[in-house]
Amino acid sequence: MRRLTAILLLCLAATPVRADEGMWPFDHVPVAAIQKQYGVAITDRWLDHLRLSTVRLRGGCTGSFISPDGLVLTNHHCAQDALVEHSTPQGDLLADGFLARTRPEELRCTSYEVDVLVGMEDVTAKVRAAIAGLGEKAANEARKRVLTQLEKACEDAARKDPKAGPLLCESVTLYQGGQYYLYKYKTYDDVRLVFAPEYAIAAFGGDPDNFQYPRWCLDMALLRVYENGQPARTPNHLRVDFAGPRDGEPVFVSGHPGSTDRLLTAEQLKTLRDLEQPVRLLLRSELRGRYLQFAKQGAEEARIVQDPLLNVENSLKVRRKELDALHDDDLFAAKRREEDSLRAGMALHPDLQVAGDPWREIGAAEAAARAQWVRHDFVEEASGFNGQLYDFARTLVRGAAERAKPNDTRLREYTDSQLPFVRQQLAAATPVYPALEKLRLAFSLERLREWLGPDDAFVRGVLGDESPDALAARLVDGTRLADPAVRRRLWDGGVDAVKTSDDPLVRLAWQVDPEARAIRKRWEDEVEAPVTLAAEKIARARFHVYETSLYPDATFTLRLNFGAVGGWLEDGVPVPPFTTLARLYERATGADPFLVPQSWLDARPALDLATPFNLSTNNDIVGGNSGSPLVNARGDLVGLLFDGNIHSIAGSYWFDPENNRAVAVHPAIVREALTKVYRAEALAREIGAAE
Amino acid sequence: MRRLTAILLLCLAATPVRADEGMWPFDHVPVAAIQKQYGVAITDRWLDHLRLSTVRLRGGCTGSFISPDGLVLTNHHCAQDALVEHSTPQGDLLADGFLARTRPEELRCTSYEVDVLVGMEDVTAKVRAAIAGLGEKAANEARKRVLTQLEKACEDAARKDPKAGPLLCESVTLYQGGQYYLYKYKTYDDVRLVFAPEYAIAAFGGDPDNFQYPRWCLDMALLRVYENGQPARTPNHLRVDFAGPRDGEPVFVSGHPGSTDRLLTAEQLKTLRDLEQPVRLLLRSELRGRYLQFAKQGAEEARIVQDPLLNVENSLKVRRKELDALHDDDLFAAKRREEDSLRAGMALHPDLQVAGDPWREIGAAEAAARAQWVRHDFVEEASGFNGQLYDFARTLVRGAAERAKPNDTRLREYTDSQLPFVRQQLAAATPVYPALEKLRLAFSLERLREWLGPDDAFVRGVLGDESPDALAARLVDGTRLADPAVRRRLWDGGVDAVKTSDDPLVRLAWQVDPEARAIRKRWEDEVEAPVTLAAEKIARARFHVYETSLYPDATFTLRLNFGAVGGWLEDGVPVPPFTTLARLYERATGADPFLVPQSWLDARPALDLATPFNLSTNNDIVGGNSGSPLVNARGDLVGLLFDGNIHSIAGSYWFDPENNRAVAVHPAIVREALTKVYRAEALAREIGAAE
Repeated sequence: MRRLTAILLLCLAATPVRADEGMWPFDHVPVAAIQKQYGVAITDRWLDHLRLSTVRLRGGCTGSFISPDGLVLTNHHCAQDALVEHSTPQGDLLADGFLARTRPEELRCTSYEVDVLVGMEDVTAKVRAAIAGLGEKAANEARKRVLTQLEKACEDAARKDPKAGPLLCESVTLYQGGQYYLYKYKTYDDVRLVFAPEYAIAAFGGDPDNFQYPRWCLDMALLRVYENGQPARTPNHLRVDFAGPRDGEPVFVSGHPGSTDRLLTAEQLKTLRDLEQPVRLLLRSELRGRYLQFAKQGAEEARIVQDPLLNVENSLKVRRKELDALHDDDLFAAKRREEDSLRAGMALHPDLQVAGDPWREIGAAEAAARAQWVRHDFVEEASGFNGQLYDFARTLVRGAAERAKPNDTRLREYTDSQLPFVRQQLAAATPVYPALEKLRLAFSLERLREWLGPDDAFVRGVLGDESPDALAARLVDGTRLADPAVRRRLWDGGVDAVKTSDDPLVRLAWQVDPEARAIRKRWEDEVEAPVTLAAEKIARARFHVYETSLYPDATFTLRLNFGAVGGWLEDGVPVPPFTTLARLYERATGADPFLVPQSWLDARPALDLATPFNLSTNNDIVGGNSGSPLVNARGDLVGLLFDGNIHSIAGSYWFDPENNRAVAVHPAIVREALTKVYRAEALAREIGAAE
Repeated sequence: MRRLTAILLLCLAATPVRADEGMWPFDHVPVAAIQKQYGVAITDRWLDHLRLSTVRLRGGCTGSFISPDGLVLTNHHCAQDALVEHSTPQGDLLADGFLARTRPEELRCTSYEVDVLVGMEDVTAKVRAAIAGLGEKAANEARKRVLTQLEKACEDAARKDPKAGPLLCESVTLYQGGQYYLYKYKTYDDVRLVFAPEYAIAAFGGDPDNFQYPRWCLDMALLRVYENGQPARTPNHLRVDFAGPRDGEPVFVSGHPGSTDRLLTAEQLKTLRDLEQPVRLLLRSELRGRYLQFAKQGAEEARIVQDPLLNVENSLKVRRKELDALHDDDLFAAKRREEDSLRAGMALHPDLQVAGDPWREIGAAEAAARAQWVRHDFVEEASGFNGQLYDFARTLVRGAAERAKPNDTRLREYTDSQLPFVRQQLAAATPVYPALEKLRLAFSLERLREWLGPDDAFVRGVLGDESPDALAARLVDGTRLADPAVRRRLWDGGVDAVKTSDDPLVRLAWQVDPEARAIRKRWEDEVEAPVTLAAEKIARARFHVYETSLYPDATFTLRLNFGAVGGWLEDGVPVPPFTTLARLYERATGADPFLVPQSWLDARPALDLATPFNLSTNNDIVGGNSGSPLVNARGDLVGLLFDGNIHSIAGSYWFDPENNRAVAVHPAIVREALTKVYRAEALAREIGAAE
């Protein structure tokens, strides 16, 4: 750990453009640094083509077009909701995989929406103007209002412009408030499942191997976007180079890193370290135990809990390693040094002098945050009310009340820009399993009572004289929200329909809503408002000192990262960057999760065992980059990002160039799989994997 | 938290004899301070009588004699193993309670052993002499050897002395090595269950109310010790004062606080904060989830998992609050200040000058500890091999190998002093539930694989090609160790019997043993040895600065604490020290865990609803004090300790006089229960609760 730390100190002290590190917005790519580091000349045309070939999966992933007919390559784990939607006890697509041999066989994924970033507009000056001179609470409200107004105006303008067509306009906060942008997306809401391999080969090694390397995972899936019932025309798409990259070759990742906290202050990290991470870890760890035990009750229980179990295990591993990273006292020391240095710079420079000390202001707000955190998390963030059914009820209740208000005074998740996706999620044919819903709701109600206390007035109001188990059973048995048609009717019926509904879950959500809104308002006023205002001041100081050599924290918006294929030294032992197919068969034990599926056992004689399987690179990626294309200097796809190594998890807080590695599926194994294992001839031809 | 912290700083800076704080060995009770603070004159006779009336329950509790016929009052939660031992699907004593109306009905508890402390001998000089001039590793081995030799000599001498009779002699390390003692116990291995109420009234409020106050728990049980098949004569026993104490009255706790870490250095606390507590919390939290889900499978599953679930939930709450306490940065700052001040004192005083800096030596050892901790915990501490059956196998394997060695070179848990208890535990009629054993073993094997990694050679050696579930099922189904007779035969057969056993769990324990021993040896040499030697240096400095005004950390040995009946202010709101019976009925919801048992509903008309139920005091207690008598200045029993409030958990690291409170059962409710609810006339007469 000592060695890492020394490098960390360098990073934080200097923060120049470093090789490999950084998640760069496409309009601020450090082309000179790339030229210098790798000798690759990046042009605007190259960037535009890559941007328009990259897609965002609204659920939290990335993908890329790899054919002119709207074919999207992404990860198997990004297609899980689609596989689950079409699974039954008789046909488990998550376990068994899926292949549409013809386009009519492609399966509509009703919860999916795919976005392509077609424009970016800097609106920082407009936001600054709207909040100028306001106190922190008023500024916080005004800031949200102007962002909603800007989004609305952008969408209205696009709708009127015959060249643009309808767009989704979303505001983006970069550098913790240093910049505000509008990101403009062309969206596709007709997304269909084309191909997925078996879970056992997609996630070979399962949870034990998750975030490990070397790996042998065919973590791929193919989707297709449709327009007007036909495969969409996608002239911007990536050519696949099935030979893949060489060791050391420069490679680029285009994708949507979800969230990092590299620019947070020490006091903000302390809230994460002492409160958020431990509490979330405890809750998820217990939930994992409940899921695992539930799965042992039978094959059907195992099937329905598999997807949520995967999610909770992934989250546990991430948070566990994040907590380890936060326990490095040197991280905090380095943060404080950077703060001192910026503070000194601010004092010296007349333009940067501000009233008060923004770090101290954040410190005071974080003390308030820590006092409110548990209640806010359980009541407003719904840690106390788990499950899809409750989520539906909450969305119906909140959505009905919010839609009755003018657009720019609504909670930001219910603005006109967001409503189509909210409705789509509500109306999607998401499977609901009552036994699982009872487990989740009872678990969360029990923990609500534990963390707020059995004598808390809100808890008593929710539970009355019932036990968490009894209440959850009564609510799940009594609700009709498992039916998408019921949800759609309630949504479309608006506030009257929801208010008069006698559905017991809707009633509970109504009961919870006032307290949840009050807690949220207090959090916004006492935490979010001062933190945002102070963070804007710090961001201005950072810009002054570092100019454009600084990249913003990840915000699930499109970023480019540059790096190279390579392994690393683990405890002094080299980890090579490529794995090959032969080792998959050697590593198999025959027992889950090291089980090779029958299709791969059958095809083995025909396969080239020297085929590269997975590869590692030093690209700077985090969750949300899943499914990102890895491209070479020509812009050809040479890998499909699906994971990072264990050191990459600390990337939430800092980038470690020595050890942080991204992990991708090699295109050669994609060709081998499609042509020889799954005999998906038409698809193979479509992406150039076969004649 | 700020207010607490200010007081903490005072505590650590001054460390004088403070009112209420402190767990004093009976030969170092600060009688002058008690006289000054409370005006109570404590005599040697008073102390001797209290000491000889107090008993240690080897499983981790305290009790007291309350009749001349060996009747022991302790907590219901301390009698759980006895209740479980005699429970069946048809008769669940844990849930339903038990009353022996005559002595022949009293039930032998085969896993219980009760000890009375009859002597204490300071052997510090002998230990110092044995290690003088040795390096840290050699000193560590010599120290253990001499402690074993001293114990053996003490027991041999007692056996030859017709006045003393057989004794158990155990060495005790006080002040992290500042003092070494021999504690001499008269032991009773024939312990019988006499009375326990229903779980629902013993633990009214269940896990939600655990460590909360106000409370309404009849957390009591009565055991009886026998000698030669007859109730033991116990002339030293406590008179019960059923009127109980007044608010503000001085009260004393005599008991066996299990473990505190108040004298640890900052670097030692950091290992707890960053590694031990988070890992243990994660594991227990998942186990809790598995247990809760297992309990939902049926009534029998719920019954057999209840006792382990209670234990894991209690442990979770303790560790969660301990972690909160460790997240107070001011605790660390105060520790470092105390270290600086002691270090400065050592530099000034010629007698205290030592080679090296003991805090730095501990820091280096803790770095080693953190690197080894996970492997040590999973392999040697058996976090990777859970369950009673594996514990039996491990004890058989280790015990056989160790008994073949000379007494003073054995691992300390297998010395001649300890063997009778080890064998008793093995031979006890502890119920074994295969389904629960599979759950626990599979869980721990799965986590072993997770934390050491699927490619770790040790993990691969244990699992082979089997999944954790499959291996656990095969081992539990194949072993015969559930039968006490089988265990007894293997134990008595010694190393040959164990070596040639084909029992699959014994074979696994043999396989694990060499790696586990190697890890332990490394830990002893690289962590324990330097830490112990450095801690002895610090202890000498502390004695010099604080003289006798310092009490040692808890070591599950007999201590006296003084304090007074009282409530506290919770967020500014007074919490009164007494609860009464009337509120029990008002608080009941009819749903577990706020369910009043039928016996109490039936008896309600006859009961005095003004009867005091529980009370709080400011005594300084921790786990292990459970079942301790609370006595007044006259030495009469005026309460039965069973818990602390939530603030008491931070008592692991420091004592907070403002908020830390002990919680006890009031003797008046004991009388009301025995005479009117359970109509236990003979028992009531025996303890003076009825004519």
